[in-house]
Amino acid sequence: MQAEIITIGDEILIGQIIDTNSAYIAKALNKIGVSVYQITSIQDDKTHILKALKEAEGNADIIIITGGLGPTKDDITKHTLAEYFNDSLVLNQDVLKHVEHIFARYSSNPISQLNVNQALVPSMATVLHNEYGTAPGMWIEHNSRVFVSLPGVPFEMKELIDISVLPRIQSKYKCPFIMHKTYLTYGLGESALAERIEAWEDALPKHIKLAYLPNLGKVRLRLSAKGFDKNAIVSEMDRQEQLLMPQIKDIFMGIEGFEDTLEEQIGKTLTILGQSVATAESCTGGRIAEQFTSHPGASEYFKGSVVSYATQAKIDVLNIPEALILEHSVVSAAVAEAMAMQALKMFKSDYAIATTGNAGPSKATDKEELGTVFIAIASKTGVYSEKFNLGDLRIKVVNKAVDKALEMLQKEILKNR
Amino acid sequence: MQAEIITIGDEILIGQIIDTNSAYIAKALNKIGVSVYQITSIQDDKTHILKALKEAEGNADIIIITGGLGPTKDDITKHTLAEYFNDSLVLNQDVLKHVEHIFARYSSNPISQLNVNQALVPSMATVLHNEYGTAPGMWIEHNSRVFVSLPGVPFEMKELIDISVLPRIQSKYKCPFIMHKTYLTYGLGESALAERIEAWEDALPKHIKLAYLPNLGKVRLRLSAKGFDKNAIVSEMDRQEQLLMPQIKDIFMGIEGFEDTLEEQIGKTLTILGQSVATAESCTGGRIAEQFTSHPGASEYFKGSVVSYATQAKIDVLNIPEALILEHSVVSAAVAEAMAMQALKMFKSDYAIATTGNAGPSKATDKEELGTVFIAIASKTGVYSEKFNLGDLRIKVVNKAVDKALEMLQKEILKNR
Repeated sequence: MQAEIITIGDEILIGQIIDTNSAYIAKALNKIGVSVYQITSIQDDKTHILKALKEAEGNADIIIITGGLGPTKDDITKHTLAEYFNDSLVLNQDVLKHVEHIFARYSSNPISQLNVNQALVPSMATVLHNEYGTAPGMWIEHNSRVFVSLPGVPFEMKELIDISVLPRIQSKYKCPFIMHKTYLTYGLGESALAERIEAWEDALPKHIKLAYLPNLGKVRLRLSAKGFDKNAIVSEMDRQEQLLMPQIKDIFMGIEGFEDTLEEQIGKTLTILGQSVATAESCTGGRIAEQFTSHPGASEYFKGSVVSYATQAKIDVLNIPEALILEHSVVSAAVAEAMAMQALKMFKSDYAIATTGNAGPSKATDKEELGTVFIAIASKTGVYSEKFNLGDLRIKVVNKAVDKALEMLQKEILKNR
Repeated sequence: MQAEIITIGDEILIGQIIDTNSAYIAKALNKIGVSVYQITSIQDDKTHILKALKEAEGNADIIIITGGLGPTKDDITKHTLAEYFNDSLVLNQDVLKHVEHIFARYSSNPISQLNVNQALVPSMATVLHNEYGTAPGMWIEHNSRVFVSLPGVPFEMKELIDISVLPRIQSKYKCPFIMHKTYLTYGLGESALAERIEAWEDALPKHIKLAYLPNLGKVRLRLSAKGFDKNAIVSEMDRQEQLLMPQIKDIFMGIEGFEDTLEEQIGKTLTILGQSVATAESCTGGRIAEQFTSHPGASEYFKGSVVSYATQAKIDVLNIPEALILEHSVVSAAVAEAMAMQALKMFKSDYAIATTGNAGPSKATDKEELGTVFIAIASKTGVYSEKFNLGDLRIKVVNKAVDKALEMLQKEILKNR
């Protein structure tokens, strides 16, 4: 069984927004055993929508469409769906009541015609209740295909996927089991890794697929399998893991839960240990703090951060001695370590991460090259730092520094366990 | 002239990564006058790639493909391109030298066959030099179409687009001029706004397109135009702006440069004024700092941040009196204002933003509801705060709080100018 995702909206095609909806939907579908054949982003244009629907009908059993359901003239998805199915739009009383209910918060006047029109749906559609917005989701069955139309606003779309769409797919179809497992390796290039595990890779059974995902010094190996016999898949994946592991044990960094980022893994470990972390960030500008706090439950283990972006802030807020900075320069191991120790002390945390570096495009100090970053990890057993040269592209330097810092922290926590 | 973007990679279709490459390419193409007809994400599968190429050839003049150029078995783009064009792969000596040069940093041994193979390109392809990686970009002309194949690693792809692909497109084609202008409004719903400006919208000339982009209380109005007479387009866009402005002046928040985010606008204003900002963040967890520092030049105006995520950190690091927290609770106007004043003082900045709230899913305090956030702005003229209820979805609460904080700061800066 295959799905296709169609996202409608000129804002995607002019690059004004990044399409995050598709990744959410693809991941959600994968979890219940539905593979995504293709993701197609198209314009708010009737001809284009009709063409994409026709093609998707040839590719997939389930077609999920997002966008173009607002009340204004540039929103044409609903009318185009009605045309595609030779259907007409009818007023749905439940949706109308919900729209009226939403506007009752703001005004006691009757709602406008544009908002009444939000309650129009193709007569053949089953309405999926959208708690957070005026545009209902729609479920249409046609030619043994399912077409689902959802609003493009991400949190409305997500709620509809989770509450309405997935359960309906699961009750309509017998879905296979899809399993992904990703092994994080570090320190060996993609091609060298591929050569090392070639014999194992060549002997993989047909229903297990291997992918290499290289990214800045790390290579993730993803094994994927799909089938109706869940137990057989799980045990075959286990068997392959046991064959793989001895070959990568010198470069193996951990198994990535399909959704667990490194900071989530760290968060889980710290929560279990009842320990905490704080950060003192210069070149990473708060990004490490932001990554920790982007996950619910961060308050269990994340104490806080001092983002000492300006050199003076390192002196005034982090209490780094000015003499130390003058002696070693602001981008130095000594300053990174002092920052980490200060963060540990100020936030009374068990671990602290500090970063200082020249992210570019201009340099904070002439002493070190562009791309040089010092990262320090402090804990109750002491402090240490590493120096990295992370290239000359600002965004790459910052992202790599965040990754390195999290890796160093993870290793330190595991060492102290 | 139309382009299609094809991104190849199972990691996109299983939702393991978000496709950011397409947005970058789409925006870059738009800037030089090339419209993107469609973005298609497909599997690492020969049949699927061949089908997508065929369809794209029917849709577009320029087809830009990313992904699948690595050295391992799951990378099949190059072979599939050769098959599509009935061509064969030949060893390119310049690419081979570059690959050898990259590996010479790590080892003096000869490079492996997998890496030699990175220098194989279809004989009809023009090689685009990839400074940062082993996979070359490729430019292939066929049936009056241009096919460009680029590596999927974002910073390699970006460099190739900027340095090689855009200049080549501009020298091959006479590109029209594309102009977008986005007006940010606040406080009026999408449908009410649409009714208010209906007469103006209906009278827009055919070559000017209006889009409504609603997002959490704000509605952005985007005007887009395209044509070969740049002066005529600019003056017509100006004329329409002059007709629109009087109708939205009570809700108008500013003109969004197509790339300028709110924090970039603030950064530019502060840089011009020679002023600075710092933040004290609780529920936003460093996200405001991260947004400021994600842009080059942030050190001109961004001093730093204290992310006082734990209540104790507000006392220990920000020096908020414990009595104040006990009296008002940690989620309160009094605490938000004290945080902002402390940040202003500690970082010696001209402005400071503070946030404290219950982002959920659990609450930091029972006094206020889930979703309640207090935001304070301090400046040399004093401090004030506002209370918001931002709903019950964590990510929504945090994102809205960041937006509100930046809006409040922008208004304050403009007021004091």
